[in-house]
Amino acid sequence: MRKLSMEELNRKSTDEFKQAQKLPIIVVLDNVRSMNNIGSVFRTADAFLLEGIYLCGVTAKPPHREIQKTALGATDTVNWKHFETTIEAVNLLKNEGYKIYAVEQADESIMLDKFTPDSSKLALVFGNEVSGVEQAVIDVCDACIEIPQYGTKHSLNISVSAGIVVWEVAKSISK
Amino acid sequence: MRKLSMEELNRKSTDEFKQAQKLPIIVVLDNVRSMNNIGSVFRTADAFLLEGIYLCGVTAKPPHREIQKTALGATDTVNWKHFETTIEAVNLLKNEGYKIYAVEQADESIMLDKFTPDSSKLALVFGNEVSGVEQAVIDVCDACIEIPQYGTKHSLNISVSAGIVVWEVAKSISK
Repeated sequence: MRKLSMEELNRKSTDEFKQAQKLPIIVVLDNVRSMNNIGSVFRTADAFLLEGIYLCGVTAKPPHREIQKTALGATDTVNWKHFETTIEAVNLLKNEGYKIYAVEQADESIMLDKFTPDSSKLALVFGNEVSGVEQAVIDVCDACIEIPQYGTKHSLNISVSAGIVVWEVAKSISK
Repeated sequence: MRKLSMEELNRKSTDEFKQAQKLPIIVVLDNVRSMNNIGSVFRTADAFLLEGIYLCGVTAKPPHREIQKTALGATDTVNWKHFETTIEAVNLLKNEGYKIYAVEQADESIMLDKFTPDSSKLALVFGNEVSGVEQAVIDVCDACIEIPQYGTKHSLNISVSAGIVVWEVAKSISK
């Protein structure tokens, strides 16, 4: 087996990305503190050709050196908007026909391995590193998706959670 | 939907984790530079009850304050060993009957969504942030697994890649 060179990967140019048909998934970041996590989510959104990222509340906006360290340029390709509050972003998405799923451990959550998207347009809300998605935001979402976990820690890193959920949902809607 | 409290999550104690039956998956880190990534992989290994993590070459070892920032204590639960070289770790695992998969973009790689593990014990090798898994390491692996990507960047963040591949492989072998 031979590793492919950068050229052989045949990735899109920024222009090709802008013109490409996107997966109708919006990632909503609800008060995410770490710029390392924000940049990493941009890179994931670039890899899976997502529609965009909504940065809400204290979530920092590009351009920022600390976001760039993990985004590595993905802030130039992926569409993003900033909202003062997450609820504002969720309400706008609802009006535009998106189904909104909070990724959170809740009493009626759907386990990710059992989840089938029932809408062609969907938004995935990921929460703050310590407090998760705010209850008031969950109250306006359509459902919660949970990543089943079996260890001692209460949650995964938020950029890892976003990677896993985006991968799984992108797979289902591309089928 | 109501968010669950920490108590309601009913996570394992460190002792319960140590005694629990693990998923027979070893994550091998081939010269991973970022302690943020190392800590994050520990947290993923804790969440999915993995057998252990092999830290190779320049990959830093716990205890370390920078690893702890993202591991949040998962270095106390997940088994780990350090090896001078990744090839040494891979050869040991082979002798113990593990099938070894490098997560890398190679000319004969298996796309993750088409991958079915054909062994009950497996090791997943993740590479350096810039150079990926070394060709010499790939040469001693059984196969390469690739995460299909459609954007402009050549790869995902390594802790995100590890999350996605561990999630997908853990799902297949738990079935």
